[in-house]
Amino acid sequence: MRQFIGVDLGGTNLRAGAVDPETGRVNAFITTPTRAAEGPEGVIAQISDLVLQVLSDGRLGGAQVGGVGVGVPGVLDLERGTTLLLPNLPGNWKGVPLRDTVARLTGLPTKIINDARSITYGEWRFGAGCGVEDMACLAIGTGIGGGLVIGGRLHLGFGGIAGELGHQIIDHDGPICGCGGRGCLEVFASGPAIAVMGQEALKEGIGTRIGQLAGNDVSRITAAIVHRAALEGDSVAKGILSRAGYYIGVALANVCVSIGPKRIVLAGGVMQAGNLLLDPIRRTLIKRVRVMPINEVSVVASTLGEYAGVIGSAMWAMDCLG
Amino acid sequence: MRQFIGVDLGGTNLRAGAVDPETGRVNAFITTPTRAAEGPEGVIAQISDLVLQVLSDGRLGGAQVGGVGVGVPGVLDLERGTTLLLPNLPGNWKGVPLRDTVARLTGLPTKIINDARSITYGEWRFGAGCGVEDMACLAIGTGIGGGLVIGGRLHLGFGGIAGELGHQIIDHDGPICGCGGRGCLEVFASGPAIAVMGQEALKEGIGTRIGQLAGNDVSRITAAIVHRAALEGDSVAKGILSRAGYYIGVALANVCVSIGPKRIVLAGGVMQAGNLLLDPIRRTLIKRVRVMPINEVSVVASTLGEYAGVIGSAMWAMDCLG
Repeated sequence: MRQFIGVDLGGTNLRAGAVDPETGRVNAFITTPTRAAEGPEGVIAQISDLVLQVLSDGRLGGAQVGGVGVGVPGVLDLERGTTLLLPNLPGNWKGVPLRDTVARLTGLPTKIINDARSITYGEWRFGAGCGVEDMACLAIGTGIGGGLVIGGRLHLGFGGIAGELGHQIIDHDGPICGCGGRGCLEVFASGPAIAVMGQEALKEGIGTRIGQLAGNDVSRITAAIVHRAALEGDSVAKGILSRAGYYIGVALANVCVSIGPKRIVLAGGVMQAGNLLLDPIRRTLIKRVRVMPINEVSVVASTLGEYAGVIGSAMWAMDCLG
Repeated sequence: MRQFIGVDLGGTNLRAGAVDPETGRVNAFITTPTRAAEGPEGVIAQISDLVLQVLSDGRLGGAQVGGVGVGVPGVLDLERGTTLLLPNLPGNWKGVPLRDTVARLTGLPTKIINDARSITYGEWRFGAGCGVEDMACLAIGTGIGGGLVIGGRLHLGFGGIAGELGHQIIDHDGPICGCGGRGCLEVFASGPAIAVMGQEALKEGIGTRIGQLAGNDVSRITAAIVHRAALEGDSVAKGILSRAGYYIGVALANVCVSIGPKRIVLAGGVMQAGNLLLDPIRRTLIKRVRVMPINEVSVVASTLGEYAGVIGSAMWAMDCLG
């Protein structure tokens, strides 16, 4: 059976590999820092080089390759195969023909998809979402993305926007979000939002391990440091993650009453905090969702980790290209 | 072609008719006050009598009838065909075998569905939602229900709960909702919520036509009176509807980023306010949805009116029964 190459374009790392569609196994996996500063042209050249590198990798064992799927962190025009807005990559990405350029440079038919949607699809096909008809996925990192599988199909919706769960409004009068709206989940519970909560605790002079771990330099506080402090038993840090989990739980309560998923998968770097986030998320869901048997909805962590996006975009390409 | 009988059970009115599945035309339509005080047994007997009345109606012209669909205002167990929670009907509806009892009393195969989902399905098949793949519907009355059509199919989700859009949280720290949660849309923009805003204006001694129309009796103020005052140009009443429309718009912004619908249909008694609600809803959507081409999402009023639920539940029964 033909394999498909999946690419996961992130603001920090670029990952690629050839995916066996029968097993979900990733062959010839490569990860490298994204040369984001080079702008669209440089990044697209880097993607294409990486694809060719996977293609010529001995680990592929001469398997046939049917095409390429690229997971892209932003808003896309799926019909034209162009990028519209990539908030975490420098340069002007408006109207860049990413799909067709990668196809031309690699000689392989190519499809593009939003990165969080590709993670969703990967987790559903071979990861934590296996076997359910309806699933929601939230990918929590620098931003908060997401995706939906509905009736056993990745649901893209009008403009491919379906699953943009980080921009659900949980406080209609809340703080301004990067999207231009107000009170979106992303303002409350993204990696940077968690870091800000840590910074504020320090500024207020609250005694916390967070400060020590950041060398008392407020600007060095990240979500990862808050997580580390919480693991070491710091109650302020645990409180911050609990607060973030509460906000995520409120947004997921909305997802539950809207689409009635059987499973919710949580992915992205921030979810390395594991149960420190999962527990308050589950508690909030039970408290806030009263119109369905919420106890029977499983809320689980991603199992594919850094492979999810590669697997998902490869499988998506296979679905599109046949 | 066989017709199917649709029943729309409301807290106030009970409606039934035979639906021609080729045209959506309702034959032998009957509407009568619901004998809600008689409790589950009485209401189910009334439903069955009404079905038999439609069946023997001369206007049917001897058409074959393939089955019955009943739209029920509450939470259902679709597999067992029982009611779980009907907040707006008196009596203990927990575990009542509505589906099988109607089938036995009428001699016709019967299916049940949530009432807002049946309105959604009706509008999609023959009303304001015709022709789109992905659609959301909000039914605004005493409560706020809703439904989703996704990928050209009515989406029910786990436990049949999908589309319960009135319980979307738009203020995580907001007032307690009837569902037991907090800050749900229903608290802010249902008919009773609009009435409360009118009552509060009067209590605060604000000069408004609302008070005159209610004979200065706070307890007589309803959403319909607020609407009438607004139509007569009263600025307080217009402000109240504008506020309600804003809240509805925020919740629909969440629906947009979650499922990416191409069309949104607004139904239910409160929507008789028409553009007094539609305008602020559209304004809010444009302001709050920044990650998709929201201008291309049409936001329209229901076109089937009181027939929507009858048509939807009949068509649903046909889909299930073949």
